[in-house]
Amino acid sequence: MPKEGIMPRAQDYSQWYLDIVQQAELCDYAEVVRGCIVFKPTGYALWEAIQRGLDDRIKATGHVNAYFPLLIPKSFITKEAEHVAGFAPELFEVTRIGTDELAEPLVIRPTSETIIGYFYAKWIRSYRDLPLLINQWANVMRAEMRTRPFLRTAEFLWQEGHTVHVDEADAERETLMILHDVYADFVEQEMAVPVIKGLKTEKEKFPGALRSYSIEAMMQDGRALQAGTSHNLGQNFARAFNISFTDQNNTIQTAWTTSWGASTRLIGALIMSHSDDEGLIVPPRLAPTQVVVVPIYKNDAEKSAVLAAVAQITSPWKGRLRFKIDDRDNLTPGFKFNEWEVKGVPVRVEVGPKDVEKGSVAVARRDMPGKAGKAFVPQAGLTERLEQLLVDIQQNLYDRALTFRADHTADVATYDDLKAQVERGFARCYWAGSTEDEQRIQDETKATIRCIPLEQPGSTGKCVYTSKETTQQVIFARAY
Amino acid sequence: MPKEGIMPRAQDYSQWYLDIVQQAELCDYAEVVRGCIVFKPTGYALWEAIQRGLDDRIKATGHVNAYFPLLIPKSFITKEAEHVAGFAPELFEVTRIGTDELAEPLVIRPTSETIIGYFYAKWIRSYRDLPLLINQWANVMRAEMRTRPFLRTAEFLWQEGHTVHVDEADAERETLMILHDVYADFVEQEMAVPVIKGLKTEKEKFPGALRSYSIEAMMQDGRALQAGTSHNLGQNFARAFNISFTDQNNTIQTAWTTSWGASTRLIGALIMSHSDDEGLIVPPRLAPTQVVVVPIYKNDAEKSAVLAAVAQITSPWKGRLRFKIDDRDNLTPGFKFNEWEVKGVPVRVEVGPKDVEKGSVAVARRDMPGKAGKAFVPQAGLTERLEQLLVDIQQNLYDRALTFRADHTADVATYDDLKAQVERGFARCYWAGSTEDEQRIQDETKATIRCIPLEQPGSTGKCVYTSKETTQQVIFARAY
Repeated sequence: MPKEGIMPRAQDYSQWYLDIVQQAELCDYAEVVRGCIVFKPTGYALWEAIQRGLDDRIKATGHVNAYFPLLIPKSFITKEAEHVAGFAPELFEVTRIGTDELAEPLVIRPTSETIIGYFYAKWIRSYRDLPLLINQWANVMRAEMRTRPFLRTAEFLWQEGHTVHVDEADAERETLMILHDVYADFVEQEMAVPVIKGLKTEKEKFPGALRSYSIEAMMQDGRALQAGTSHNLGQNFARAFNISFTDQNNTIQTAWTTSWGASTRLIGALIMSHSDDEGLIVPPRLAPTQVVVVPIYKNDAEKSAVLAAVAQITSPWKGRLRFKIDDRDNLTPGFKFNEWEVKGVPVRVEVGPKDVEKGSVAVARRDMPGKAGKAFVPQAGLTERLEQLLVDIQQNLYDRALTFRADHTADVATYDDLKAQVERGFARCYWAGSTEDEQRIQDETKATIRCIPLEQPGSTGKCVYTSKETTQQVIFARAY
Repeated sequence: MPKEGIMPRAQDYSQWYLDIVQQAELCDYAEVVRGCIVFKPTGYALWEAIQRGLDDRIKATGHVNAYFPLLIPKSFITKEAEHVAGFAPELFEVTRIGTDELAEPLVIRPTSETIIGYFYAKWIRSYRDLPLLINQWANVMRAEMRTRPFLRTAEFLWQEGHTVHVDEADAERETLMILHDVYADFVEQEMAVPVIKGLKTEKEKFPGALRSYSIEAMMQDGRALQAGTSHNLGQNFARAFNISFTDQNNTIQTAWTTSWGASTRLIGALIMSHSDDEGLIVPPRLAPTQVVVVPIYKNDAEKSAVLAAVAQITSPWKGRLRFKIDDRDNLTPGFKFNEWEVKGVPVRVEVGPKDVEKGSVAVARRDMPGKAGKAFVPQAGLTERLEQLLVDIQQNLYDRALTFRADHTADVATYDDLKAQVERGFARCYWAGSTEDEQRIQDETKATIRCIPLEQPGSTGKCVYTSKETTQQVIFARAY
């Protein structure tokens, strides 16, 4: 029986997504501010968990946080030619402060390469100041025609790293390190979402970048979602903003810069990787609440016995499990079970009068709804059992997503096969086409080259579109 | 001998402040975006420490975080009469998105009562939904005529809590709980800054509030700094945005709301409470780096012996002390001592070849510069000794600030005494004057009533200005 308020995935995946977002109370639509959403507490708690995981890795790899202005002089955006072409149509412009009309508009940052580049040019003098490794947590705004909660919103939250290096090799090392050690590591280890690391094509790269890399995840409808991007900006922004330094031979050199970002769209990736027709599923390592305890009783005598048992059972959990005791008095256990299921808490522990008698509890795992995932276990050793269960659930979610991706990825040798495959998932193929070929394929199939995977087969084959011999394989898919 | 680049406090306090901000690399001026600053890594790390301390307390008192849109329809601001009068002259207006001219401008939030009130009206149906206890971490913008790093900038970072309650008593309880358990507790315990908790006068309250409370700290020049405010908004915003609920008798009631905020100006409070002519002083509990170790050597043999000793000495510190080993090779120990002194690290540990021989180290405490604060101590038991030293420094900084405030606070009985006292600190006096009297005093002395302290003497006396008999004492001071 489908859950109230949630469209089954098989019937309408797009509506299912909107229903999960609504029913799990992740966000609200801010219809009064075009294209914006409110991050409700349950949704924002996911973002806080994502922030923690990314911030730890960003700092562990030698970066520090800073904060640059929200507003950017509009002229800054126009200093890098590709950059302005990419962002000008999407800018929110401030033209008035109080009663003052501004001579030059300020724009709300769509991304901060330009304003940060301006300051870096002031701060950097010598090779001794490099590498400069700074990250910023911020809100940004880009006008969007079609919005979708978390995936595409006018305002979103993200981190943007901006670094400066003495040469191309060091900038490239940084760009790839971030891709591997920050983004892929976080998304796979904490979010339990397997990713493909790869290079973007010229058509898909960041406006102003020399090379863009991304991690690409597969959603449950076979579509790709770009979950983090890392750009080697070459000397493009350094030239535009005059970021230069004196090298060891006392000659002035133009610097090399990188930028990299991951945003609140990761919440969308999380939802569409694991959740089911019952609601959200949050992987244990990321979950703000890992275990919810629901006490069950019918009268005051039962209540006091059960709550005393719950207090005793949970007393060793502090510092080991993130848990919540749902002792709300005006709601039935069934209502509570449903609420925590919809909100994706990994494990539910039920304690009733019989459990008090028998020294047992019922444990239900969210990744296996219904009887399959429910067990009656002794209270003795419960903490260790739950710790292990959380590890198992984390692994199961990752394995499931990996299996799903394998089942929905196929090597294709012909354009017809490619067309058929992108209806159901990722199409892997040899590619030697041009940007124009790529655009034609997009127009005809709605699929784009998601990336040129860093892991290549090392063999040669014929391009799926041009039939030219090549060693390069790519992934085609429809994308969010 | 004055430190290079730092004006002695006694000579020009205002310039000293700017020098500290500059020399400790806390921020840069964003002259291209009127009134804005860049939070440089050292300054932003202080904000991260402040965020952690406040966020822990906000959550421990039952609140959850959420995030609302940056932009607000301009018409929202005008819905509450006092609110619009307070904020309209300071608004940053977005009038264009891409090439679209907006029919109604959007403004960058100067504070979020209005946009949050709009959503709360949608979300709240029944008394069961209350209290609603939400906090937001965000950037806000207000045009400012005269700016000063951290203390008054066009864009600043803050947290703003917004809560909804069934009645006035519950809203008042929340407002005061935040003042005591979140703001005063954090600022006194972690920042080592003593504060006076009090009620704002009608003249000084938040535009739209029923009652505003604040914590007021004394800076080293005797001026007051408002370090956090908590407002009982009564039903003003609830009426303007129609936030109502069905009560237990099934009748519709208008809700009561509160809001409360603390911002990056706390960084300014930190600087002006503790720092000296040598640079910044950061209290140990807040310090991102509590102990810096500087190895001292003249040749490779000494270097390897010293670094081995440093590794051994610091190995038990992980998880107990936040420390940094400054092993930069191209800088002299003297340069390093100076840098960490200017940046305010609470304790410096020096390890040289003689220390390796003797099993000793030199320990220098930042709150007592020079010989007075330096001691040679055995390596054995060093971890515990440093832990205790950090506790002592924290206490010393608090005690020093408290003594300073006591020395610069006086009871005044006449207007002449008041005028003289606000030149050097806080003037405490009986007060029964009007808002007009208060304004006249401000025009004549530049001092305002900082607050009506919650702790009152319980006696009566004559108003310093009107000579009317009253039980109410207030604090007059010049303020940042």
